[in-house]
Amino acid sequence: MHRSRLSTVVIDCPESDSERGFEFWSQALGRDLLPDPNGTRYTSLRGRVGGDGGPIVLMQRVSAAERAVHLDIETNDVEAEVTRLEKLGARVKARIRNHVVMEAPSGHPFCVVPVHRPDFPARATEWP
Amino acid sequence: MHRSRLSTVVIDCPESDSERGFEFWSQALGRDLLPDPNGTRYTSLRGRVGGDGGPIVLMQRVSAAERAVHLDIETNDVEAEVTRLEKLGARVKARIRNHVVMEAPSGHPFCVVPVHRPDFPARATEWP
Repeated sequence: MHRSRLSTVVIDCPESDSERGFEFWSQALGRDLLPDPNGTRYTSLRGRVGGDGGPIVLMQRVSAAERAVHLDIETNDVEAEVTRLEKLGARVKARIRNHVVMEAPSGHPFCVVPVHRPDFPARATEWP
Repeated sequence: MHRSRLSTVVIDCPESDSERGFEFWSQALGRDLLPDPNGTRYTSLRGRVGGDGGPIVLMQRVSAAERAVHLDIETNDVEAEVTRLEKLGARVKARIRNHVVMEAPSGHPFCVVPVHRPDFPARATEWP
């Protein structure tokens, strides 16, 4: 038995011009930038999408070739969630630190990440 | 004076295998499929991301070359919103029916769409 939820909409911005990209999305969506105190790779937008327990919008500096929007699924059991998603047709592309990059049958990359927000498991689905 | 909000996370699925893509995202995120009664191009997932007023997850059949995840911004004044976003550095890529495809300075395509959900303007930002 484990739980998971859509936790993050990640906008990958090219590092060559990431400040401009971050500023654009902040102003376009009307949310303040919340820089990560631990480094410059990530910056989030203040507040939850939709409300309590909803996802956040996170921007990540990446090399230009990777630019995309992708979804993160947060779970209290990464391996169980990866196994569940593999049975649905997704495949593992990479394991980076504590998260797993997967590719959906639709061709979209997404990440499975361990619990990292204090309100988990709000809005999470429990899987048998 | 107009308002806008992040209304939709759109997952573009290749039409060659869209049923499988739709089914995957439904089961991965634990939300039922809600087929569009007006056609087969769009299928949404039941419920709002985060709660009342939050975005929906919508899946769209597209040609393989277009596959991506993109964001829709819903507004009660499309032209005013496009002008606001152009001043922030976005540019218009195409006008399709009643919505405008734009590209952010970060290189990400997104759409500006007219009000299409009855709870607008919940969670929308008012722009001077």
